[in-house]
Amino acid sequence: MNEVTAGLLPEGLRDRLPPQAEAAAALLRGVLDTVASHGYERVQPPLVEYEESLTGRVGAESGANAKLLRFVDPVTQRTLALRPDITGQAGRIAATRLAHYARPLRLSYGGPVLRVKGTQLNPEREMIQAGAELIGSDGVAAVTEVLLLAVEALQSAGLETLSVDVTLPSFVGALAAGPWPVAADKIEAVHTLLDGKDVAGLRAAGASHYEPLIAASGPAEAALAALRALHLGPAFEARLADVADVVAALPADVRVTLDPTERHGFGFQSWIGFAIYAPGVRGEVGRGGAYAITHPDGHRETAVGFSLYVDALVDAGLGLSAARRILLPVGTSRADAAKLRAAGWSTVAALTDNADPHAFRCTHRWNGVEAVAIK
Amino acid sequence: MNEVTAGLLPEGLRDRLPPQAEAAAALLRGVLDTVASHGYERVQPPLVEYEESLTGRVGAESGANAKLLRFVDPVTQRTLALRPDITGQAGRIAATRLAHYARPLRLSYGGPVLRVKGTQLNPEREMIQAGAELIGSDGVAAVTEVLLLAVEALQSAGLETLSVDVTLPSFVGALAAGPWPVAADKIEAVHTLLDGKDVAGLRAAGASHYEPLIAASGPAEAALAALRALHLGPAFEARLADVADVVAALPADVRVTLDPTERHGFGFQSWIGFAIYAPGVRGEVGRGGAYAITHPDGHRETAVGFSLYVDALVDAGLGLSAARRILLPVGTSRADAAKLRAAGWSTVAALTDNADPHAFRCTHRWNGVEAVAIK
Repeated sequence: MNEVTAGLLPEGLRDRLPPQAEAAAALLRGVLDTVASHGYERVQPPLVEYEESLTGRVGAESGANAKLLRFVDPVTQRTLALRPDITGQAGRIAATRLAHYARPLRLSYGGPVLRVKGTQLNPEREMIQAGAELIGSDGVAAVTEVLLLAVEALQSAGLETLSVDVTLPSFVGALAAGPWPVAADKIEAVHTLLDGKDVAGLRAAGASHYEPLIAASGPAEAALAALRALHLGPAFEARLADVADVVAALPADVRVTLDPTERHGFGFQSWIGFAIYAPGVRGEVGRGGAYAITHPDGHRETAVGFSLYVDALVDAGLGLSAARRILLPVGTSRADAAKLRAAGWSTVAALTDNADPHAFRCTHRWNGVEAVAIK
Repeated sequence: MNEVTAGLLPEGLRDRLPPQAEAAAALLRGVLDTVASHGYERVQPPLVEYEESLTGRVGAESGANAKLLRFVDPVTQRTLALRPDITGQAGRIAATRLAHYARPLRLSYGGPVLRVKGTQLNPEREMIQAGAELIGSDGVAAVTEVLLLAVEALQSAGLETLSVDVTLPSFVGALAAGPWPVAADKIEAVHTLLDGKDVAGLRAAGASHYEPLIAASGPAEAALAALRALHLGPAFEARLADVADVVAALPADVRVTLDPTERHGFGFQSWIGFAIYAPGVRGEVGRGGAYAITHPDGHRETAVGFSLYVDALVDAGLGLSAARRILLPVGTSRADAAKLRAAGWSTVAALTDNADPHAFRCTHRWNGVEAVAIK
């Protein structure tokens, strides 16, 4: 091994050391325990699949294809890829091996994902994703359940202050196909202008009738009122009422905003999407929304889910627990050691006399009779 | 997506479904909780590293190189590989980023590993490995601690009957370099003949003096007595006394055998190795032993560790827990649902009237007042 590179890892990959590695595991465990308590059943798809399995179906998320770390499998001689996301794998399972299960089908998952490149905001290429998917409905009850579950999981992880940004991914497209017509070849341009909140651009593009959407963005209640005031007709008004119901179900201490034109990263969601933020945490702490899964026979099934990356929570200092480590001098009986572990201690057996408890990160030392706190 | 391949996975890769996925997670959690209670601190190395990092150092395990699933990283333009094993990564961390930590350094890990091909016994290419490494000693106390820890972890996972096969990986080499000389270019041939218990072959190769080793194999006490009776001199006798001490420390209900010539898969272990078996479980349930880590400056440090693969335990039906799932009819209050979860239930909210509890794998149904068992 080259001594210069010894211990070096490729760009975007890292070792989690103590105590952060334990924090990551504890946070993942906590999230999965929360979703399990709501009846979500665990699936564990493989890290590697045929490339086309990862880009098809739900993977239609914009840019999913470009995220894949691919290689040719020496065994099958086909191109495989590392999963950049587990949501799509859960959808594949729901549409194939669990197609015969009753709906709604509630699935959960947690594990590493890999992408070919990090982003400017987050240079990591390997992350730990956890999430839950409810398959077979994207109605208000289903969306509310999943959003509240995401909030509960994040609050359990120690994030007391959360804000939720609600988006309406299919809203602009539906307007363009209905009450606010836009030529099919101009929809993308209008969307881009709305993304940039570019009022002047909208006017120049002859889409100034979309301007009110830019104003109808901000705290959810006010934004919904502004959207209702546009009198878009019964179908839109029913959808807005659904959104209002979801928003109203959130705990009072969660700040909720609505942006009807935001679509960044919501390429595969349908009528509602959400991103969750917390002070002190880089980027989003979770996201999700309603979407559809395509079955092998081509039919589409509604679903709603959320996922989060444990890494951002670890980096924000969450998941650490106060260690109760006790140093056991040489000669401590196995029975004493077992009793201490049963009482919740992590025992650290000294292999030499006069071992320094500090060097082993111990808070206590066993004197043969009791645990003595280390000064 | 091609409809014919929909849902199909590449050879050697699989989806874990409910309830096995949950069982795998519970078993992994249990093993890591056990090792954490003995003071082992968690590390989480990346899934992917430079190929040479995975083949160097501890990775000198025979055939490690041939196990790697490699690809050229589009970002660094270098060859990366998926880890086939986490032990080597823990050693890398101990020798680099944690080189300044006091010894013994106790590390644990758990997560997926990938190899290019399965074996005849186990066709899976992705497995969940968990383990613990004690770095800075390979003495009797250290080896005993790690072996007892492996036994405890497996017993906690539900394996009541265990047997441990002890091996002496460096024994034949030490004999050949000492009291039972063999030309350097013949050692490998002698080793192969011993592996095959090939008495006739040993005679033909002029190594009939190695025959007694084949007989000195079986229940540990008898095998150790047979080895001691060979009067190999003080250094060997001291080692055999060490082995006897390790064997004596095992619980009385663990069956222990010794094979001084077995080396299959113990390519990187030194004076002692062990493999653990249990009835009803395919192949080994765990293995480990003493070894050495090479630091970047070339110096070698003793260590001892064990690892196990959760998958074999899941396949043997371990880790499953009786689900307490309760169906909540539409309209159940959130407060009632939260109370049930706090009492240990997994709640499953019906989204439609008259949902069938059986279809959602529920054992109980909430009637608004109490949990009613489903017939």
